[in-house]
Amino acid sequence: MLDKIGEYEFIAEPFHCDFSHQLMLGHLGNSMLNAADYHSNDRGYGMEYLNTVHRTWVLSRLTIEMDTLPKAYDKFKIATWVEGAMKYFTSRNFAVTSSEGQTLGYGRSIWAMIDTNTRQPVDILAVRDGLISEYIETEKPCPIKKSSRVKIEGESVLKRTIDTYYNDVDINGHINSVKYIEHTLDLFDLDFYKEYRLRRCDVAYVAESHQGDKLNFYVQQNADEYLVRITKHSKNSAEEVEVVRILLKFVKE
Amino acid sequence: MLDKIGEYEFIAEPFHCDFSHQLMLGHLGNSMLNAADYHSNDRGYGMEYLNTVHRTWVLSRLTIEMDTLPKAYDKFKIATWVEGAMKYFTSRNFAVTSSEGQTLGYGRSIWAMIDTNTRQPVDILAVRDGLISEYIETEKPCPIKKSSRVKIEGESVLKRTIDTYYNDVDINGHINSVKYIEHTLDLFDLDFYKEYRLRRCDVAYVAESHQGDKLNFYVQQNADEYLVRITKHSKNSAEEVEVVRILLKFVKE
Repeated sequence: MLDKIGEYEFIAEPFHCDFSHQLMLGHLGNSMLNAADYHSNDRGYGMEYLNTVHRTWVLSRLTIEMDTLPKAYDKFKIATWVEGAMKYFTSRNFAVTSSEGQTLGYGRSIWAMIDTNTRQPVDILAVRDGLISEYIETEKPCPIKKSSRVKIEGESVLKRTIDTYYNDVDINGHINSVKYIEHTLDLFDLDFYKEYRLRRCDVAYVAESHQGDKLNFYVQQNADEYLVRITKHSKNSAEEVEVVRILLKFVKE
Repeated sequence: MLDKIGEYEFIAEPFHCDFSHQLMLGHLGNSMLNAADYHSNDRGYGMEYLNTVHRTWVLSRLTIEMDTLPKAYDKFKIATWVEGAMKYFTSRNFAVTSSEGQTLGYGRSIWAMIDTNTRQPVDILAVRDGLISEYIETEKPCPIKKSSRVKIEGESVLKRTIDTYYNDVDINGHINSVKYIEHTLDLFDLDFYKEYRLRRCDVAYVAESHQGDKLNFYVQQNADEYLVRITKHSKNSAEEVEVVRILLKFVKE
């Protein structure tokens, strides 16, 4: 049996780094999703197997909290493990370290499983007789706060509305989870990033959107925290539907 | 001395693939630029050395022509070599193969070198006593047509104007070369890509643009070929300046 914890090496590609030579957070999030994908496939409960039984993982929450971001050309490692698995949700953690073993930051995520025909949640523990339960790792620390539900109360301001295009769409035909993060970070301009560094982001995925949907970004600022609520307007529908909520915590550089 | 040809392995990451499970062309272009970067750094005439003498490479043209694109999870290799070096331009080729050695496609590129203080072209052969000349490879075939200058005559139609944001900007503070390709491919929607596959794209980089610039996309269609002219409107300037020209050749799937 494979180790409960899987570790994967990545490189901070120069064209994935921003003006400060640090890896952009969207690309780091993408590497975390890759690590999750490799880890679960290698252990028999990943997308590769699930696709054969018309099931798939759906990302429900993603939190990334970084002390330090890898710089251009740096190799870094992402360790990932499943911390808990219940009938309808599983929690997966991430630890990001430099190639010398220094801690750079952590991540947390929550996933559901759906039937790809009905799009309804299914029992995670029914897959391969609860195979995932054999890989629960509770000893390895993940010393960051649990993912927030990102509850939004009070006034927020519509900051931007964007169209969604071909490059926003993932392999499943939905807007890519990481693209929501990138579009949200794009609400702030280069001058802002020269002064502030994103320390933590909590993303709560509420509904799917598709190419052609318009996405609306509502922003509420509380000191260095920004709550962003993303809604969609689909073609041929006047209804406005919430798709993602994001909480961003910046620190002054 | 290292081989004249360098070969680098990549993986078609699942979240970099489109609805057809094929690697998106922008991500392939990014891998080519990485291969060029690794190859030139390893041989002593890359950005790493150039930055110490306030010089840098500037991409002038990039052509990608693919028979087959890697599919999600496929490993693939990019071989790259310098085909020729003159005072102000050098040409670098790419061969993309599957991990079993099957040819998937090719690339061509042309680069200039500039002084990062004056932004003026400098003599490539003056760097390290013409070190790059020792690595010219003329035997390896690159059986695709030379990069086109992408001359645009006649009527083209303004198809879209976009703003540029934080995620568009590269390590040098300019709009990332690959982002122009992605924004151009975004002019076509998912339904179009269900019918047509991009076989070749020629990109001519004319000027730089910066975050905050508005980019205008003018399109001219000639059968399955699309000529796209990208201009910028910078803040505090009414002037419209050409930045990139792209020729796209699609084939019916």
